[in-house]
This record gives sequence, structure tokens and C-alpha cells, in this order.
Amino acid sequence: VGQSLVVVGSIAFDTIRTPHGEVPEVLGGSATYFSLAAAFFVPVRLVGVVGEDFPSEYRRVLESRCIDTAGLQIVPGGRTFRWSGSYHGAMNEAKTEDVQLNVFGDFRPVIPEAWRDTHLVFLANGSPVTQAAVLDQVRKPHLVVADTMNLWIDTQREALLDLLKRVDGLVLNDGEARMLSGEHNLVAAAHKIVGLGPTFVVIKKGEHGALLVSRGGPRVGSLTSELVCPLPGYPSLKVFDPTGAGDSFAGGMMGYLASAGNYDFRSLVRAMAYGTVTASFTIEDFSVRRLERLCLDEIDERLRLYRGMLEF
Amino acid sequence: VGQSLVVVGSIAFDTIRTPHGEVPEVLGGSATYFSLAAAFFVPVRLVGVVGEDFPSEYRRVLESRCIDTAGLQIVPGGRTFRWSGSYHGAMNEAKTEDVQLNVFGDFRPVIPEAWRDTHLVFLANGSPVTQAAVLDQVRKPHLVVADTMNLWIDTQREALLDLLKRVDGLVLNDGEARMLSGEHNLVAAAHKIVGLGPTFVVIKKGEHGALLVSRGGPRVGSLTSELVCPLPGYPSLKVFDPTGAGDSFAGGMMGYLASAGNYDFRSLVRAMAYGTVTASFTIEDFSVRRLERLCLDEIDERLRLYRGMLEF
Repeated sequence: VGQSLVVVGSIAFDTIRTPHGEVPEVLGGSATYFSLAAAFFVPVRLVGVVGEDFPSEYRRVLESRCIDTAGLQIVPGGRTFRWSGSYHGAMNEAKTEDVQLNVFGDFRPVIPEAWRDTHLVFLANGSPVTQAAVLDQVRKPHLVVADTMNLWIDTQREALLDLLKRVDGLVLNDGEARMLSGEHNLVAAAHKIVGLGPTFVVIKKGEHGALLVSRGGPRVGSLTSELVCPLPGYPSLKVFDPTGAGDSFAGGMMGYLASAGNYDFRSLVRAMAYGTVTASFTIEDFSVRRLERLCLDEIDERLRLYRGMLEF
Repeated sequence: VGQSLVVVGSIAFDTIRTPHGEVPEVLGGSATYFSLAAAFFVPVRLVGVVGEDFPSEYRRVLESRCIDTAGLQIVPGGRTFRWSGSYHGAMNEAKTEDVQLNVFGDFRPVIPEAWRDTHLVFLANGSPVTQAAVLDQVRKPHLVVADTMNLWIDTQREALLDLLKRVDGLVLNDGEARMLSGEHNLVAAAHKIVGLGPTFVVIKKGEHGALLVSRGGPRVGSLTSELVCPLPGYPSLKVFDPTGAGDSFAGGMMGYLASAGNYDFRSLVRAMAYGTVTASFTIEDFSVRRLERLCLDEIDERLRLYRGMLEF
């Protein structure tokens, strides 16, 4: 049961400093967090690139969760993408200290022939040109969702706008949504983005949760619950390391959608709730450590608590 | 049915500038917004002070909603409190342009003898010394909730800490909660504030909603839904004027609690939902204009939509 899901994105060595400590060259990257989060719900197909320095223990982390690494390119003599960042104060945003793209800078994703009929495709943050090249390789996917970032909104806006006409959903953070739409109000920003092509947009607001806006029936001025859903963040007493929270959110969301095989508005809302809860575990430890030792029954139990909070 | 509710706070002439326009000396003040919001649920007793310049039409706005103004002091020859502010960009915060305390500067609240057994007391933002003086005048209220602000946290911390031992609930915004607790994480901040005396605290986060933390059974490390509830803001496509949103939230919340006559955790959550929805109307027009023409069935209809959004 469940539909097939492929993710294309980065795999990285992260060096992270938070008020709770510092870790050097731990496993990270958007596709890594996404895969580990989505794998609680369905098998995941991972397309990414690493260097020869990628250790077998990191590969085992992925494979122990039944993430299919047949799409993982290993560049001979290459070095894996490195990112260094730190978090301060309320830890809402990472301060990037250093980036070494290495093999990720020349990444040309190749979807293995056997994966070209995958039902759900997630294009993790990457250049919209590269993201479009991935879509050229898949046949009639049921659902395509993309992430993006300020860099591409700023430097490759036209390519991004072209891409938006080819995706069903866009996931991005609040600052990026404002930048893409030119609207301060996030509901207005989301409505404008939906006007650019996607059927739905999910704006991630970190600790403040997420906002879903979806095209529905005809809109006549005011909002209806058919089209808009704000979900609060899960209330976390301790945020250890926020790295990967957004990608874990997307992974939980897409993983749930693949397992449900249904993309109507109610399913999207439930998928966001699963994404929220999955991400709330990610931030409880450095890197992917919490995801590594997480079990689906813990996710389900926290979802139950979260749902209970929102009943009135 | 319903219990009695008294509010003590400011009544003001607001001069407001937003990207949508500018209005001079319109009706405002914390007790004004609170009263108009709470009055949808129960009769409200208002204690405040104005000058001789307070026009009868503003008084009619209050009285047309059955707000009892027997506690309204009119200072002969005095001028009403004036506040001027502007909103920019995402309009999350007011920029104060001018403040003239006038008669509010010497405000010594007097609770009319007939009101000293009021069941619910809301101490809108004011000096904690003044707020305590109000509590000295009421006999065994069922529920006392206070608001505060950065000024008092900064300049009258000891008096505020004394007050917190005498109230059941505290309502304040996110920046104030961080300032009072010294904690960046809002869940941690709320837990710390609950440790200072109140049974519950509600942290207002503007467009991002509100967070409730309440003392419950014994806490053993992790959170339970018994104790914590985050609610998202109502998704508003257009924010016309955010002035009074926080006070309308508190008014809707306290009004609902008075009408329910029950203050358990589930009632607090439902009260927050009513507060959220009531405030979402306030911001749709300048000053109290939207509240003036609002009806309870509109609040109930929007609550139904809001509840529907949060079902998954």
C-alpha cells in the first residue's frame, strides 16, 4: 500500500553551533532530513550526490530506514557538500558561517529508469533550472511539490516562475513567501503564489507553525475553511537544534500524502499536522539523531496530543 | 445566566496611521476594546477615566452594547488620554508617535460598591500598583486576570511580581513574556511565568496566534495536552488596523469564560478561540468600527470556520 515517493536534494556534512553545544561534520542536507522523515510513512527513493568522503555509516543511517539509495551519485575524488551554521537567541534562524558546495555545485540529478513512474516527487531546495530538469525525467507524476529559497527568488526568478507552472504545490518559509509575492500579509502572499501556478502553497513559519492555502471552489471575497488552514507549531519546551526542521516537515507531509494516496484539502491539512509533529522531534537533538531513534508510534502519540490541543 | 465581569483600564482618543489610511482622535483604549469584545458574551462593567472632552457619541458606543459605565470617572476640566501610533510593513507592531496621559496619568480606579462582588475581574494594562489597588477593592472574585507591558516589567518588576501572586491568569505578548521570564523559548517562558504565581498564562503572538500554558497535574519532564495549547491566528487576508487586537482577544476570552462560568483547561482553550475570532474582526476596520457593527452570530460562524480549519 502507499504510493511511491522520490526526493531530489542535497546531502551534506553540517557543522552546527547552538546554545546547547557544537557538532562537526554531522549528517545533514535537505534530502537527508526529508527522506528520514518521509520514511516513517512510505519507502523513499533518494536522488542526491556525495563525494568519496561520504562514510559508510552515514549511508547506513539512510538504508536502515529503507531509503533506497540507488539514485545516490558518488563522485570519484569529490568532496561532499559542507555547511556550517549557528543559532542564537530564539534560534528562529540559522546564521550561515560557511558553505562549500563541492560536488553539489555540479549536481545533475539523474532519475534511475526504474523510478521514472514515481507517483510523488519532492524537489527539495535547488536551482529551479535543476528542479525543472528533474521534472523532464519523470512521467506523469500524481503530485509534484517543490521547495525553494531566497537565492533563487532573487537570481532566477523567471526560471522559478516557469517551474511554478509545472508543480502542484510549493513549500517555502515566510520570508521567502513575502519576497516571491511582494506581499507582507502571509495570507495575501499565499493567495498570490497560488495565482502563479501551484494548486497549493504551504508557508512554513518555524516555531509559529505553517499556513496552507489551496485553490478550491470559486472565491468570492472572503475566505472559507475549504481554502485556508493555519496550524500552530508544536509547543516545544526545548529546541536543541532547529537544523532540518523545515525539510522534516516536508518529509512528514509528503510521506503521509504518499501513504494516504489522496491529495484533497483535508488530506493536505492532516499531512501538515504529520509534518509539524515529525519536525518537532527533529529539533530535539543535533543533526538527524532524534529521527534515527524515532518510531512511528511516537509520531502517532504526539499527533494525538497535538490534535487534542486543537479541540475546543 | 453568566457571571459578572468588570474591567479596569484605559479609555483613549487614538490617532492611527496605517498603510490603509489615517484617522484622528478615534475611540480607543484597552478597556474600550475589551468591553466591546466581552459584551458579546455577558454584560460588562467598565471602570475607567476620561476628561470633560469625552463626547457623548463615544459614550453611546459603549452603552449601546449594554456596557455599564457607572464606574466611568469624568474629570472636570480634564483631557482624555491620547495615543498616536502608526503601522508599517507587516503591521505586527505599532510605532508609538505620541502619548499624552492626561487624566489617565492620575487614574485612581474606584470600584463602585455594588460591583465589589463581581465574579470575574480583568486588570487591563496599567501599573501593577494600580492593578493591586483594584484587587484591594473586590471581595473573593472567582477569576482575576491581568495584562501588563514592558514598561512595568522594566520599572516596577517587584510590584508586578507581588501582583502575580494575586492573579489567576496573566495575558501578555511574546516580547513581554520573554522580558519577564528571561527565556527566549515561549513555552519555557510561559512555564516560568506560571511558576511566579498565576494558574495560567496566555502569550499573545499577534498574527501567529496565542499560547496557553496552565498549571495542571504534576509535570514529569514532557508536556501534555492538559497543560499547553497553541492556537494559530485566524488567517486574515486584509489587516486594516491592528490597534486593539490584543485587548479584543482578552475581551472575547474573558467574556466567554464569564458566560460559561467554568475555568477548566478546555474552557480556557475555547475562550482563547473566541478571543482569536473576536480580535480577527477588530482588525478589519479602524478603531472600534467593526466591533460596533459586529453581531454574535458572525462570531459564532467564524468560530465554526476556525474550528473546521483545525480538524485533521
